[in-house]
Amino acid sequence: MPGDDPIPPTIRWAGDHVELIDQRDLPHELRLVQARTVDELCAFIRVLAVRGAPALGAAGAMGIALAAVTGEDIGDAARRLAATRPTAVNLQWGIDQARQAPDPVAAAVQLAADDVATNRRLGSFGAALLPQDANVLTHCNAGALACVGYGTALGVIRAAAEQGRHPHVWVDETRPVLQGARLTAWELDRLGIPCTLVPDVMAGSLMASGDVDVVVVGADRIAANGDVANKIGTYGLAVLAHHHAVPFYVAAPTSTVDLTTPDGAAIDIEARDPDEVLRIAGSPIAPAGVRAANRAFDVTPAALVTGYITELGVVDRIDALADLRATT
Amino acid sequence: MPGDDPIPPTIRWAGDHVELIDQRDLPHELRLVQARTVDELCAFIRVLAVRGAPALGAAGAMGIALAAVTGEDIGDAARRLAATRPTAVNLQWGIDQARQAPDPVAAAVQLAADDVATNRRLGSFGAALLPQDANVLTHCNAGALACVGYGTALGVIRAAAEQGRHPHVWVDETRPVLQGARLTAWELDRLGIPCTLVPDVMAGSLMASGDVDVVVVGADRIAANGDVANKIGTYGLAVLAHHHAVPFYVAAPTSTVDLTTPDGAAIDIEARDPDEVLRIAGSPIAPAGVRAANRAFDVTPAALVTGYITELGVVDRIDALADLRATT
Repeated sequence: MPGDDPIPPTIRWAGDHVELIDQRDLPHELRLVQARTVDELCAFIRVLAVRGAPALGAAGAMGIALAAVTGEDIGDAARRLAATRPTAVNLQWGIDQARQAPDPVAAAVQLAADDVATNRRLGSFGAALLPQDANVLTHCNAGALACVGYGTALGVIRAAAEQGRHPHVWVDETRPVLQGARLTAWELDRLGIPCTLVPDVMAGSLMASGDVDVVVVGADRIAANGDVANKIGTYGLAVLAHHHAVPFYVAAPTSTVDLTTPDGAAIDIEARDPDEVLRIAGSPIAPAGVRAANRAFDVTPAALVTGYITELGVVDRIDALADLRATT
Repeated sequence: MPGDDPIPPTIRWAGDHVELIDQRDLPHELRLVQARTVDELCAFIRVLAVRGAPALGAAGAMGIALAAVTGEDIGDAARRLAATRPTAVNLQWGIDQARQAPDPVAAAVQLAADDVATNRRLGSFGAALLPQDANVLTHCNAGALACVGYGTALGVIRAAAEQGRHPHVWVDETRPVLQGARLTAWELDRLGIPCTLVPDVMAGSLMASGDVDVVVVGADRIAANGDVANKIGTYGLAVLAHHHAVPFYVAAPTSTVDLTTPDGAAIDIEARDPDEVLRIAGSPIAPAGVRAANRAFDVTPAALVTGYITELGVVDRIDALADLRATT
């Protein structure tokens, strides 16, 4: 199956180092880069060469594997890795998985394999929620490139396409870093799934004209009460979906649920470099000296989430996952 | 006063031709260009060298003046001018004003002068609605550059600053054409009014964190029932403002009210070239071959508008303008 996948693994363990797709070059070039030290991997994470909560989980585990192979202090490596991105809980989770294992390398390799299997399972659960010929709106990139493979929100869409449901996807371009235009459109194009790129500001108009049947997004952290941190703009979509009675689903592996975070207010929201707003592809878009703000994530209250699509099944309240865990 | 204005007139009658700021070059260069024929002016309107509903009103009138001066057929000129942009009603209004006048040139010059006076009046009415030290969010550019001078939504903010109310402005960058980043930030910078550029997707997060006291936007057409066509993304802001109980004001001269359009559903929404979405500053942001949609405007239902700020005063329902007209 992996050989047939039109999208290569986002990140993989390559014997004694980590190999990953440098997502900064997409959609123009599919380029693989290597991280041979924890510091090299941290740098790739910081600049978003690799990003997406599940992919960061694998990156965290592989960072610990790198430390083990290069003989670096594991505790120090864990701290440096965790400090690269504060919001995605999977990063810390992946670090912990590898640290707690007798063999960090084997644990990282297993975690990466599990990621793809998990996404295929959640994709098949979620696909059943999409009507035939559905117009699905998604934000940012919660696809194969946000994971090791297959994708979460895009995994749901991909599974629906595999089941012959013929979804069409409205792809939010997702300013400021344009992950929708650069990554999601690239993935859907490779997969042959029809899509239309739209400016983020078009979502309201599309819902008002009845052109959105369902919204599916990923998550960077889900708090114990079900509040969801995800790419900036997700919350606005949730409010719009609620206003138009359009179902709003969050697709994420259970490793994105953080029971130690009681609610959205407790989630640390990363503020990124204002230059990501002030420049596009290196060119300034605003007058010199103008300030910009760049909150990377926002929080969607649980009350606005129609359902959570996980590898254990679909739940309408996050605490219902406990029952699913008990029965599986 | 005009001599003191840090922003030159957007468009003016220069003896026997029209001179205008080519807004495509902003914020990098303040460049004046000349239109000596109706066709040249139509081309400038189509490519957004000049844009904004009140500015298009002046452009329409000056187009008729050009036809009169160059001896072109007035009716044919009127049709070509009106066809350049379908949504802004002021364009047709300006054309009609000049056609109905005995001297189209004098009428166009008068209309341009009236625009600035109108905006100063509506600005001073609107300023009273902004609390001291208000955080005001605006979308697109409804400033001097969208008019002949002073601005509508930015006129309100400018008047508040002149009255010592110290507003701070959240400037939506306004994809796809980035009028907020390129034009609104440029104007506010020239005027010395503090502002922060934000990606359009940040509005929900800013409202949720209590950082928006009021939203003020312009309008391209206001239907008889008060529905408002304005730059794509305005409707989403109105829904968010409603959700957060943030006042949402539309600032526009009464020439933007179109009593012949019963409601928003009857407003022709311009679809623009998908390349405006697919490219930024000439560079592609998505894979080759991917489709994009580019609705230039959306419609905000009257129910989501807290008030309409006009040169006659502020009304909470558009039909209340009739009473103001009767008493002024």
